[in-house]
Formats: sequence, structure tokens, C-alpha cells
Amino acid sequence: MLTRIDHIGIACFDLDKTVEFYRATYGFEVFHSEVNEEQGVREAMLKINETSDGGASYLQLLEPTREDSAVGKWLAKNGEGVHHIAFGTADVDADAADIRDKGVRVLYEQPRRGSMDSRITFLHPKDCHGVLTELVTSASPEQTEH
Amino acid sequence: MLTRIDHIGIACFDLDKTVEFYRATYGFEVFHSEVNEEQGVREAMLKINETSDGGASYLQLLEPTREDSAVGKWLAKNGEGVHHIAFGTADVDADAADIRDKGVRVLYEQPRRGSMDSRITFLHPKDCHGVLTELVTSASPEQTEH
Repeated sequence: MLTRIDHIGIACFDLDKTVEFYRATYGFEVFHSEVNEEQGVREAMLKINETSDGGASYLQLLEPTREDSAVGKWLAKNGEGVHHIAFGTADVDADAADIRDKGVRVLYEQPRRGSMDSRITFLHPKDCHGVLTELVTSASPEQTEH
Repeated sequence: MLTRIDHIGIACFDLDKTVEFYRATYGFEVFHSEVNEEQGVREAMLKINETSDGGASYLQLLEPTREDSAVGKWLAKNGEGVHHIAFGTADVDADAADIRDKGVRVLYEQPRRGSMDSRITFLHPKDCHGVLTELVTSASPEQTEH
């Protein structure tokens, strides 16, 4: 069951400048940053609020590390903006299987590693009214039950 | 101060079909629906979770009521997808003034009426790294302090 908006993924050309925009304009601070070589992104997570399921909602700022990554290609086509949205669940495997059974294309055969050691998968935007949709299960109870 | 992700605004061609997609695929239910003639949209709010500031996070599904509305023009150009993101604040007037002072274009001189009698304004996407950004103050303490 999907129990929260986990994050909004925003693609940008320059991560440092975009982080600085969110800090200077709204006061949002970087909670976590990492490079995900498999996804081809350098990213910063800005924590906005905690959520009633024990998790939290973030902005995820994404800069491609290579032009041929999914985010790199998307940026070249669309320019900066909202790249995807993500819902949090306690069980990404069960939800992905259930959603696949309903006829929505799930992009990974098995969930992969996402931000902060979460497990993630994506749903095809053409099956979701144009919205690239991610499902996320956080890494550890410590991360979602503080 | 912006204290939550209030909603993600998603533009769609057919509100009823899109509401049904979110219900059938994820189990999300309509919390509120209305027509906003000033904005030129018919909309449904799907409540996803409550937030640590006493508010909640929603998906806001938007169907234009006329082709020349902002959402109608956006849909004609972009197709279905994420139209804007919105942050919640206890004082949209103060935050809008503060953000305007920082050089970000605020689209309304004064906040206008948004979903569920909230007061809203928008920031120019070209000043926000491509993201049309809304600021929202909910209508009543009852809506944000339950």
C-alpha cells in the first residue's frame, strides 16, 4: 500500500546552483547527497516534512552524470523541471507485483537501489497519464520510524 | 516558512478517467472536488498522507474547463503530466513578499482563492529552475490542525 508522497524528483543542469536556489529562496537544506552510477545521477535530497506513516517527504534534485543516462536524455529534450514523483510503501515488491497485475508496465524486473539505500522501481509514464511514477521502500526502520 | 509538500498538481485530459486510474491502481480516493472558474479547471484532490506541520499532502488532478486557461494551454503543448508543485505555509502573504524580495517573480499581486478555500500564489517557473511552484495557506485551522 502506498502511504506517502516520498519525493518529487526534479532534473537540473547544475546541482550545486539548484541546491543553492532552494536554500536561498525557501531555506531548504540538504539532508543527504550521493552519486548513483547505475542511474547516472548526482543527487541531493532536501527533507521538507515528516509524514503520518513514519516516513518523510523530500525534494530530490537530480543532475545527470552522463548525457546518455535517462535523466540526461530527459533534460536534453525537456529542459529543467519535474522529472518524476515517488510514493512510499512498506513493501515495494508486493505493490509492484500488484500494479503489474493490473496492466501497468513496471520498468524493472526486480527493484533496484535508490537514494539512501532504498529499494525502488518505476512505472511507465504512458500507463500513468504522463507521470513517471516511482515506488520506494526506505532502507531501514530507523529511517522511517524516527 | 514553507513547512510541507502540500500537493503535486497533475494536468489531465479527462478528470474522471484519471481519478479512476489513481483509485484502481493505488487505492487513492477523492477527498474533495470542485470547479475553479477563475483558474479554468475542474479538479479532484486525493489525500495521500498527513504531514508533521498539521497539514496534509495531496495529488491535485486538473482538467481544464476551457482551452485558453493556463492548464488548457499547458496540456496542448506538453500533454498530460506534472503541471506544478505546491508548498504549504502558515502565511502565504509573508512568504510571497519575502520571495519576491529575493528577485523571484511572484505571479499574483495578491494571493487568490485555491482548492478548498485556500489562499495561493505561484512563482515563475523560469525563476525556479523550470518548476512552476505554488505557495498555499489552507483555509482554516481545522484543515491544518487535526
